[in-house]
Amino acid sequence: MTALISNPTIDLLLRHRTHRAFTDDPVDEATLATLFEVARRGATTSYNQQFTIIHIQDEQLRQEIAAVTGQAHVAGTKGELFIFVIDLYRNACIRQAADADLVHASRMNAYMAGHNDAAIGAQNMVIAAESLGLGTVYLGSINADPRRMIELLGLPAYTYPAFGLLVGHPASEPERKPRLPLSVTVAVDRYPVIDDPVAFVESLAEYDAEVQEYYGTRASNTREDSFTHLIQTRQGLGAAERSPMREVFTEQKIGLY
Amino acid sequence: MTALISNPTIDLLLRHRTHRAFTDDPVDEATLATLFEVARRGATTSYNQQFTIIHIQDEQLRQEIAAVTGQAHVAGTKGELFIFVIDLYRNACIRQAADADLVHASRMNAYMAGHNDAAIGAQNMVIAAESLGLGTVYLGSINADPRRMIELLGLPAYTYPAFGLLVGHPASEPERKPRLPLSVTVAVDRYPVIDDPVAFVESLAEYDAEVQEYYGTRASNTREDSFTHLIQTRQGLGAAERSPMREVFTEQKIGLY
Repeated sequence: MTALISNPTIDLLLRHRTHRAFTDDPVDEATLATLFEVARRGATTSYNQQFTIIHIQDEQLRQEIAAVTGQAHVAGTKGELFIFVIDLYRNACIRQAADADLVHASRMNAYMAGHNDAAIGAQNMVIAAESLGLGTVYLGSINADPRRMIELLGLPAYTYPAFGLLVGHPASEPERKPRLPLSVTVAVDRYPVIDDPVAFVESLAEYDAEVQEYYGTRASNTREDSFTHLIQTRQGLGAAERSPMREVFTEQKIGLY
Repeated sequence: MTALISNPTIDLLLRHRTHRAFTDDPVDEATLATLFEVARRGATTSYNQQFTIIHIQDEQLRQEIAAVTGQAHVAGTKGELFIFVIDLYRNACIRQAADADLVHASRMNAYMAGHNDAAIGAQNMVIAAESLGLGTVYLGSINADPRRMIELLGLPAYTYPAFGLLVGHPASEPERKPRLPLSVTVAVDRYPVIDDPVAFVESLAEYDAEVQEYYGTRASNTREDSFTHLIQTRQGLGAAERSPMREVFTEQKIGLY
């Protein structure tokens, strides 16, 4: 195997873990300002800058959002909570001011571009936060009830609540979770179609054993599981994964074409 | 304004520019191995790891992809070309091996989760590349003809070509492009609905002037334009923005529910 290059930024990226437990220490103003600044400095599709960050500061609102996610680490007050909104509305308003058509905002490609912008901005925040010793967790779980999120945040047509992000001072040091081998996730020139699913699962035996070791020996919440077993038995069971997202897209007038 | 925190990683994120001109110098093996490694170390929704990177090495294939994008900087051989594929197929195969249902793979939420995984992985690659002095450009333009991309890469059902990424040794030093003010892109607790689009455009006058200065004085390809003028007159005109993406989603059996 080729030796990897090391520098402080790369080493940081390689050390990434998800944090769900934070201390009561607040994230200070200078850090917040820095996180917002790096979020907007990322690449943006066609210079459109189509996402908006909503920083949740109201206690009651946070508890309502926590109820949507169903996740204990969102409830309480530990860590700063940000909601990333895919935002095709702002530019639609700018076009409206010139009586230009709003077709673009309803295209799936525009949604995808806004989603890219939001994810790139969020990942910049995650990396900056980690470089300051903070921990983060993405919250796809806000999609368990997108209609409720839209109501809680007052989101107009041409917007969609993509995901949340919690940033705080870590209260624990989780183990690094094993990843699928690059031989499976990186290909050259052509997609590696799987001819025999059973043989493919068998080919992941070594990785499955590594995941089993991780789940069996981590500091808390140990369980008996492997990657393929998890996918076979648990995928699609989360509330977010069963929400009527396609319908909500239509209600928000996005992703129509 | 609150002073920003500085460290090597944050300074790197703040220096970001898009590069479209690269030298002939190849990206070496150790760098490639490092880029793939950081890509898989990012956060992943529900541990599903739903993206695949296709590294384009075949000359002819690269020219075919360049033709889809219509972009001169993709043609030729400068910079390494990666296609990020949203991949709900791999886990669908794992489920198929256990006779589990494949409903999840056709959900919009699964697509969104895979898109998040892909964008987070790509942004990790971008940041690692920049930390090594390389330059990058995302290629949303592969969506100008997703059916052709699917054909060229042999993409099965439950996959979608999200975007490309070029990484190479910069042949120029572009200016940093101004971003919308944080007062517009960050809100507290509630989405900042725009009551009067014309007044909103007027409120962006200072930013528009900054963008006009940028376009008028940059080293190459100068033009007369502002942010709001660009959105009002050019948004939605790119080939990618008019592709039948929603139909292709249906053909790929993704984003149905």
